[in-house]
Amino acid sequence: MFEDSSVCGALRERLGARLSLNDSVRDNHGRDESPFPPVSPDAVAFPESTEEISWIAKLCSEHGTPIVPFGAGTSLEGHVHAVRGGLCVDTSGMNQILRVNAEDQDCTVQAGVTRVQLNDHVGQSGLFFPVDPGADASLGGMASTRASGTNAVRYGTMRENVLSLECVLADGRIVRTGKRARKSSAGYDLTRLIVGSEGTLGIITELTLRLYGIPEKIASAVCPFPSIRAAVDTVIETVQLGIPVARAELLDALSMKAVNAHKGLEYPERPTVFFEFHGTEDGVAEQAAVVGEIARARGGGDFEWATRPEVRSRLWEARHAAFHACLALRPGCKGITTDVCVPISRLAEVIEETRLDIEASGFIAPIMGHVGDGNFHSVILIDPASEEEAKNAEALNHRMVERALRAEGTCSGEHGVGYGKLAFMEEEHGDALDVMRAIKRALDPHGIMNPGKLIPASK
Amino acid sequence: MFEDSSVCGALRERLGARLSLNDSVRDNHGRDESPFPPVSPDAVAFPESTEEISWIAKLCSEHGTPIVPFGAGTSLEGHVHAVRGGLCVDTSGMNQILRVNAEDQDCTVQAGVTRVQLNDHVGQSGLFFPVDPGADASLGGMASTRASGTNAVRYGTMRENVLSLECVLADGRIVRTGKRARKSSAGYDLTRLIVGSEGTLGIITELTLRLYGIPEKIASAVCPFPSIRAAVDTVIETVQLGIPVARAELLDALSMKAVNAHKGLEYPERPTVFFEFHGTEDGVAEQAAVVGEIARARGGGDFEWATRPEVRSRLWEARHAAFHACLALRPGCKGITTDVCVPISRLAEVIEETRLDIEASGFIAPIMGHVGDGNFHSVILIDPASEEEAKNAEALNHRMVERALRAEGTCSGEHGVGYGKLAFMEEEHGDALDVMRAIKRALDPHGIMNPGKLIPASK
Repeated sequence: MFEDSSVCGALRERLGARLSLNDSVRDNHGRDESPFPPVSPDAVAFPESTEEISWIAKLCSEHGTPIVPFGAGTSLEGHVHAVRGGLCVDTSGMNQILRVNAEDQDCTVQAGVTRVQLNDHVGQSGLFFPVDPGADASLGGMASTRASGTNAVRYGTMRENVLSLECVLADGRIVRTGKRARKSSAGYDLTRLIVGSEGTLGIITELTLRLYGIPEKIASAVCPFPSIRAAVDTVIETVQLGIPVARAELLDALSMKAVNAHKGLEYPERPTVFFEFHGTEDGVAEQAAVVGEIARARGGGDFEWATRPEVRSRLWEARHAAFHACLALRPGCKGITTDVCVPISRLAEVIEETRLDIEASGFIAPIMGHVGDGNFHSVILIDPASEEEAKNAEALNHRMVERALRAEGTCSGEHGVGYGKLAFMEEEHGDALDVMRAIKRALDPHGIMNPGKLIPASK
Repeated sequence: MFEDSSVCGALRERLGARLSLNDSVRDNHGRDESPFPPVSPDAVAFPESTEEISWIAKLCSEHGTPIVPFGAGTSLEGHVHAVRGGLCVDTSGMNQILRVNAEDQDCTVQAGVTRVQLNDHVGQSGLFFPVDPGADASLGGMASTRASGTNAVRYGTMRENVLSLECVLADGRIVRTGKRARKSSAGYDLTRLIVGSEGTLGIITELTLRLYGIPEKIASAVCPFPSIRAAVDTVIETVQLGIPVARAELLDALSMKAVNAHKGLEYPERPTVFFEFHGTEDGVAEQAAVVGEIARARGGGDFEWATRPEVRSRLWEARHAAFHACLALRPGCKGITTDVCVPISRLAEVIEETRLDIEASGFIAPIMGHVGDGNFHSVILIDPASEEEAKNAEALNHRMVERALRAEGTCSGEHGVGYGKLAFMEEEHGDALDVMRAIKRALDPHGIMNPGKLIPASK
């Protein structure tokens, strides 16, 4: 029993009440927002400093105890499930914003700071952090999964927005990757290696992030299209023309129906793009005019405009509530969220094929996409009591991934691999997967860092 | 003797005339554009395919023969010097542009394709590849050194512009990192790990690169300032306001004097910023008006405008010729180019201190900077026959690096480490350097890939 182990004793001695073996605490840390059944850790630690995490890692390393880093628990592929048991390290107590450099437009935060907390803070200085995965995730977690979201088309993902980070390795060493300079050619890009590594190489404890000035003008617009292809082609042309659109979110007809029903709205129930433009007063007007023209040429309807903050918020609330709106299409159901990303030239075709596949499978499964990036999701609504539906939904998801890979895409645009997508890594990466394994072994020789995630065991 | 070795025999048998042991060929491959004395490889191979490079790597791996990848030889820190002897692998024969996807704005090229060759080709489709280090480097080499240049402030460096790549590892395995999708959360970011690794982890054989639409309107302007600080502050404010300036190049008064003398121009001999704006007709006009106002508030002179392509070319030719112009300030001299990068809030102070240090040292050393990124260079003009000057220049460069590190910057903004900056890696990275060493050992256990570069041996 973990309770009787010397690791547990040492942890208890140092952390006191900040180590918990309580069942409900463990249960809450063995689940994320994925549909996978919870797998609880043996215990949960609530460290308050990098040094404490370093000490924990050293201890766990010596005893071969698995470590599962935990931020806000909003991941979507079972990232925090303690599939090999061990200790969950909850970083939510490390929630200090350490430094904001307004002139350099960057900030340094502890890993447990959430994106809403950060934006509330830096908003006072006229700045914002753009990466927006929907949930109020922790920034350490967002870096770990290489999160993105609605405005990555303009501002990039966590890959582009982490300047440097502090990380505790499996053996307790504390390393700082990179400097605060905007660019560097001095050495391997460890920052980008840790970003997206899902806690399998170390625990992120601090991050230095890029910030942006809040634009002088923000305008949003909703535009219905006669087809998915017309909607996608409008966005492709927009991006090709170099128009710095900040958001271009596609909802298919079924998603629009769900959103209308959920929010009491009356949008046309057709494929629809939610746009957002950022810039100066004149710049936004010009962007909007050009995109409006492109849309009209593709049969798009009139833009429904929103510039006042409260109207814009309502509009984006409708978009962000789409997941829950979709669930309401089938009362009592569970939603399986898929997440693939393809080159945008292939997006319309891949979505159309997916639509047909969904129809043939008999599921209700609305589709939503970050069109500018080629990334889209469907929410497959299944009866939580039906094993057959679970199996069929998994097969449908599998076919979506296969289709994305055939179109030179990836099995995950932004949710990550966790253990939900382990099975696709071999096919997506081929021999490059062995390179990932070699790096994993080099930095975590005993395999204690979030084992069973991201990198499948060798065959 | 290499000539009599079984490696040489095997290479000769397979490559025939595409293996050279000729002295002048070896000499040309043992030098780059750095001031370091050439160190020739034992032989030079001219492979024509990835498979051939894979075969070469396997052979060299079996015999412990060092491999030095070679692109166009335009690196600046001794990257291609065969400091441990061995085989130079010249990729210039692998110069096919394999595919251009205009809709996705990307292309796939062999590593030996140069940036001018690529731009000539994709320009026909209204596209361009933005990364511009000045020299007509090979794209494989640019990726290897994580190159950037004048317009990185808008378009990013090689870090942001390589979507995926093919790479031959030390043991001959061929791996493909990443897909053509714009983003992915599936696995370690091997693309970013290889970019900037200077041939120490493998040989890049193919790259998939981002392209951009040629802007509808391009306008350049030259603006003199009363001080370095006024010039830098103007650029900081421009960037803070979110104005997507495409280039903002600082030349100090001495550089301007050199450029005037070299090109027969009559610019004011004061700190000067060369700006470039990309966008729509109206967008460029608006950007220029706002930046003009900011500059005036800082005491900047009138913008000297250039919109016609031939006038713009002349203007940027003047900027790109600055290095040679500087050399002419001291006939017969050799130029030592420095390269540091700091957070932009520290840039003015660091440049001013550097200016004073240069004056105290008695050298002629003009300063030029990619201000928007916080990156600047000086060209220290030394008498090639004077050991004392060489030593003093090295000490001056060392102090510049120390100053950059104190200001949370990096020892190399864009030129890389090669063996010229090995001595600074420990101080810049601390314990993170051991992580780099562990990765190097994991992927190149026999240490045959460009040995003696980038990663200093353990103490």
